[in-house]
Amino acid sequence: MRSVPVYAAKPYEVKIGEGLIGCCGEEIRKFSNAVRAAIVTDHTVSALYEESVRQSLESAGISVCSFSFPAGEESKTLETYGKLIRFLSEENLSRSDLIVALGGGIPGDLAGFAAATYLRGIPFVQIPTTFLAAIDASVGGKTAVNLPKGKNLVGAFCQPSLVLCDPSSLRTLPEEIYSDGAAEAIKYGVIEGRDLFEKIAAGNWREQPQEIIERCVAIKARIVREDEFDTGARQILNFGHTFGHAIEKLSHYEISHGKAVGIGMLMAARAAERFGISRENCALPIAEALKQNGLPLSCGFSAAGLAEAAYSDKKRSGVTVRMIFPEVIGRCVIRPVPVGELEAFFRAGMEE
Amino acid sequence: MRSVPVYAAKPYEVKIGEGLIGCCGEEIRKFSNAVRAAIVTDHTVSALYEESVRQSLESAGISVCSFSFPAGEESKTLETYGKLIRFLSEENLSRSDLIVALGGGIPGDLAGFAAATYLRGIPFVQIPTTFLAAIDASVGGKTAVNLPKGKNLVGAFCQPSLVLCDPSSLRTLPEEIYSDGAAEAIKYGVIEGRDLFEKIAAGNWREQPQEIIERCVAIKARIVREDEFDTGARQILNFGHTFGHAIEKLSHYEISHGKAVGIGMLMAARAAERFGISRENCALPIAEALKQNGLPLSCGFSAAGLAEAAYSDKKRSGVTVRMIFPEVIGRCVIRPVPVGELEAFFRAGMEE
Repeated sequence: MRSVPVYAAKPYEVKIGEGLIGCCGEEIRKFSNAVRAAIVTDHTVSALYEESVRQSLESAGISVCSFSFPAGEESKTLETYGKLIRFLSEENLSRSDLIVALGGGIPGDLAGFAAATYLRGIPFVQIPTTFLAAIDASVGGKTAVNLPKGKNLVGAFCQPSLVLCDPSSLRTLPEEIYSDGAAEAIKYGVIEGRDLFEKIAAGNWREQPQEIIERCVAIKARIVREDEFDTGARQILNFGHTFGHAIEKLSHYEISHGKAVGIGMLMAARAAERFGISRENCALPIAEALKQNGLPLSCGFSAAGLAEAAYSDKKRSGVTVRMIFPEVIGRCVIRPVPVGELEAFFRAGMEE
Repeated sequence: MRSVPVYAAKPYEVKIGEGLIGCCGEEIRKFSNAVRAAIVTDHTVSALYEESVRQSLESAGISVCSFSFPAGEESKTLETYGKLIRFLSEENLSRSDLIVALGGGIPGDLAGFAAATYLRGIPFVQIPTTFLAAIDASVGGKTAVNLPKGKNLVGAFCQPSLVLCDPSSLRTLPEEIYSDGAAEAIKYGVIEGRDLFEKIAAGNWREQPQEIIERCVAIKARIVREDEFDTGARQILNFGHTFGHAIEKLSHYEISHGKAVGIGMLMAARAAERFGISRENCALPIAEALKQNGLPLSCGFSAAGLAEAAYSDKKRSGVTVRMIFPEVIGRCVIRPVPVGELEAFFRAGMEE
């Protein structure tokens, strides 16, 4: 088993190992005296893993209740959050009990936001079952739900007490969901791991993802440690995201987060080259890495439309958008881009 | 103007001064570059003060939107919270803007919880217009809304950026609401201010409440500083609350928080005497102070009923309830009481 410490305000560990789902109760018992746990998951993941999580918790002497909801972004709303919170109160969960977030980013976000706010905060454990949740949502403590007006507009910073990542759950993922995670892994490589980037770019790591997960988690943990509340350094993690969010939005979220970020990274690399920010051609290796991991290289939207969508993104600050560009594979920089110049960057991002 | 610094994770000041409502914009401008503010208030307070807050903010160059809801505990729900959050997003409030909580504890709680979670946290300023909000809710960062299952079951710890308390707003309070605050002031006296207690007990301080407010805020600030996230020392602030919450609950919240806590303090003092915890007769001076401030001394419920209601209180921890008792006027102690013995304490609390 591998383990990555995360030094947030409240430190915790991300454990990575085959079979962790089946012995989660034992792992949780090591740090918690909880007598009850609420499993929060979606219907899809519930069918796959809820029973083994439940059995393991019960074997460790933790009684279990569970809350599940239809899989998909449509469930990530204040309405589902309200139902979950009322469920926890009906079940009389106390501050010494805990929530187990089982699944991808959506159960993680809902469970995390509930854990941050129910009784003003109770402990929670994450068991990510997607690659994206394992390497992204498991570190950083960002939880949120969507509003009609936009994604992730309401939430909280809330660190889990423990993250248990079982790579065997990743092998059963549909190709689509797996490649979404791959896009995020490529991002870590471009941000600060040339060797990591090369391993992911090769595209043949799916059977042995432990090392990749460990490296990605360690990179994110280091960056988040510097800037837990996302006020500066952490913005580097938004590489590909200004372009990516705009793509997601214009597609009405038909294009998934991972795919959109993948295209966004390629656009950022092209724009970096066009505007003299990069010191080597980053677009070519990024395009190759995307292809090798089953990710698309383009979307059908116009530069003007994307720039407009990016402007209404909540990450704007005043009239300048802070964008991330690669200097070389393995190092990125943050550059403020005046809103008026955004379209030019989007246009440059589309020129092959 | 008086000012009390509060050294929470994010330090801030509680300013107390005549006319602060009318110059809130100026005060806010001293620390904030916000271009927009959302005033959150209830219909009653809106009619009294919203216009002068709005004018002052606009004079300081801050454009204003406002959200108000029917006054009363019935509004302190996840539903109102959801409406408020959606309102903030429709108004495109950004992280550099701010929320102004104007009113008593309920607008403060709703606005504070929204400020804690909208965009994962935006700044908020409190303008308490009740005595209770000025001396209790303005320090400690506890925000919450109610669930069908109980009060304050979902919320967050969230410190305001500034608290502006204008005593002129307190003079217009209905007697009922004023005496609710007086109960909380008496509590601070019993906890750690014999001289403060004597001033409040005299009952003739309503025209000049500045000093009382300042003392109460300073006491709470000191206690909260030791225990921001309410894991130990801060429990002393629950003096009167185990009994009080039970009374509120059994009355279906017909008996207000302040009145219930007042009766609860008297019951705790009697029980402390009966079980040899107190070193002087505290019940007599507490009863006198309650009377002088227009507060009731008893409710009509049975010890058994109250003990049952207290048991299902979220503040229980395992099978022991941590209760607060006065040793002398000016000093209290925390004692764990096994749930099985609760009824005896309630019974002792009722014996005159």
